[in-house]
Amino acid sequence: MYCVIMAGGTGTRFWPRSRAAKSKQFLTIQGKRSLIQETVSRISSYASGEHLYIVSQRSQRDELLKHVGSVPEKNFIFEPEGKNTAPCLGLTALHIQKRNAEAIMIVLPADHLIGNKQKFKKTIFAGVQVAREHDSLVTIGITPDRPATGYGYIQRNTRLAEISKVSAYTVKTFAEKPDLETARRFLESGDFFWNSGMFIFKVSTFLKAVEEYLPELYDALMDIRKVIGKPEYETVLKNVYRQIKNISIDYGVMEKAANVMMVEGDFEWNDLGSWEQVYLLSRKDKDGNAINGRAVCIDTVNSYVDNDSEIIALVGCEDLIVVKEGGVTLICKRDRAEDVKKAVETIRKKKYSDFL
Amino acid sequence: MYCVIMAGGTGTRFWPRSRAAKSKQFLTIQGKRSLIQETVSRISSYASGEHLYIVSQRSQRDELLKHVGSVPEKNFIFEPEGKNTAPCLGLTALHIQKRNAEAIMIVLPADHLIGNKQKFKKTIFAGVQVAREHDSLVTIGITPDRPATGYGYIQRNTRLAEISKVSAYTVKTFAEKPDLETARRFLESGDFFWNSGMFIFKVSTFLKAVEEYLPELYDALMDIRKVIGKPEYETVLKNVYRQIKNISIDYGVMEKAANVMMVEGDFEWNDLGSWEQVYLLSRKDKDGNAINGRAVCIDTVNSYVDNDSEIIALVGCEDLIVVKEGGVTLICKRDRAEDVKKAVETIRKKKYSDFL
Repeated sequence: MYCVIMAGGTGTRFWPRSRAAKSKQFLTIQGKRSLIQETVSRISSYASGEHLYIVSQRSQRDELLKHVGSVPEKNFIFEPEGKNTAPCLGLTALHIQKRNAEAIMIVLPADHLIGNKQKFKKTIFAGVQVAREHDSLVTIGITPDRPATGYGYIQRNTRLAEISKVSAYTVKTFAEKPDLETARRFLESGDFFWNSGMFIFKVSTFLKAVEEYLPELYDALMDIRKVIGKPEYETVLKNVYRQIKNISIDYGVMEKAANVMMVEGDFEWNDLGSWEQVYLLSRKDKDGNAINGRAVCIDTVNSYVDNDSEIIALVGCEDLIVVKEGGVTLICKRDRAEDVKKAVETIRKKKYSDFL
Repeated sequence: MYCVIMAGGTGTRFWPRSRAAKSKQFLTIQGKRSLIQETVSRISSYASGEHLYIVSQRSQRDELLKHVGSVPEKNFIFEPEGKNTAPCLGLTALHIQKRNAEAIMIVLPADHLIGNKQKFKKTIFAGVQVAREHDSLVTIGITPDRPATGYGYIQRNTRLAEISKVSAYTVKTFAEKPDLETARRFLESGDFFWNSGMFIFKVSTFLKAVEEYLPELYDALMDIRKVIGKPEYETVLKNVYRQIKNISIDYGVMEKAANVMMVEGDFEWNDLGSWEQVYLLSRKDKDGNAINGRAVCIDTVNSYVDNDSEIIALVGCEDLIVVKEGGVTLICKRDRAEDVKKAVETIRKKKYSDFL
């Protein structure tokens, strides 16, 4: 049993706090630890040392070592560039397979908030059992508590089992982020769950699915497999990656495979998709303001301030997100937090890349 | 004829651009020159060298020399602390009187924007003639073009003369900043003019008025007069100033004296009372945004950005004033620009005085 923490995100939605060298998993949202530290800590009772892999990009190596330096260095897998989750997990599967052909991989994003550690553990263990017994690709579906439009959904099919009070289902279909009306129908039906991006499967099951549904990627992975542990590894990896298509495990594998199953994750979960999510989760003062760093608010309400420098003064503002990182400041209406990436794109186009 | 430029303001309304060491007169609002440089340039054809005085506080000395270093150093008058305009002009009157007992003083704030230099000059010269002929305290009243609520008003009485197309009047009364309805009545009546804070009088006339209406201040000034040019000057000045009451020339002298007259200033004038004024006077792009420094605006309209650092991104904002100076950032709704001083007060109370 191996946990794989996906820590390669570039996190433009958290710009400017997540500038190039500092992506979302390194942010401290609640408490004192970064999201990736929380993730490592959450699973430490059943996956640590040799059994914990971190997959990321080489550009994030130094920051990763600062945050999760306790992970053995050979368990860091670095991609030469980001090509989305299917190649990332394919590469990781190769490495784990080499160590243990019968291994089960538990795939966890580094940057989610999860409320109940014990329920989470039970869900993981149920997923491991389902993946092992059914040779299936198991995904964790979160019990929705509101008609969220920011997540993809998984529709369950028939009930398969209940393992330590965790329900397991076969999966009927995956649905893209819905509009509000559709999300309401999803919630009422009781058949839809949030797609958490957490997966559990045997390495062998996953690679077989890649062979079937993403044969080009599979061939590329086989080229890499030949050189693992050899001096030419880095060079081959770089060359192969340059040609690999950018594709997600959801789109490339999960939505196509027949042997997909779901375990129900009935715990608090938040993928922290934007500063608005962070605001909603933050502790607020009587005016509804959540302040990190030094700020003075005059007649200002329901705003989020994250300031790394001397002081920010807000006068007569409402519903603002203000984030300052070095010489870069974001000021965003709260209901427009999804559009922070537009600012990042514009800055990229204008070639102000130092500020990303 | 001596011009006195009052350059002692601390300018909290322009915080954080106007932090302690950099008050409003040193800001560049339009063009390339600071407001005080514009003021000196505007009068250079009739008041320069020996005939130009700058009165300020010692803490601003270095910045002043950078901006208006052409003024002879002995024509800089430094107050040990700010006690408003009556003491400031009293002290200056002493110095000028010592050089020339018959002198006429033209008092100009350092930090106003003025449109028509020629009309301005004609107004000044008309004022000088009135002050000389009538031994009066002459104020410049600006012809209002809108029912402004941000200025005090002067109500004219009878017409006295017209000098080079500039009308001169006796003054009926001074009025505080009115509400909108009152301001509309003022505008309709045609009898009310904006109180510009510019004055013209003989040194002797002014000191006589101080003796009559502010006898305590007059006595203090007499103590200072005895030591002008002597080694103990600075020490005496400091001790006397500590006890002087904070009082404006308007409240202490102009509103009480009988021999007050007004010349009509029919030129563009703006006292730049707040960032909102600066926004209104700035060149705007098609979205109504006025940007100084580097900024990226996504769906953002009618906003003012003044950025001294790498970049500010605004997403989905409207009617905002954003000013960044070093590690200090102001974010203010445009219709709340008058309340920037509340932020400054709060910061002062919290003893974050490094940020003022």
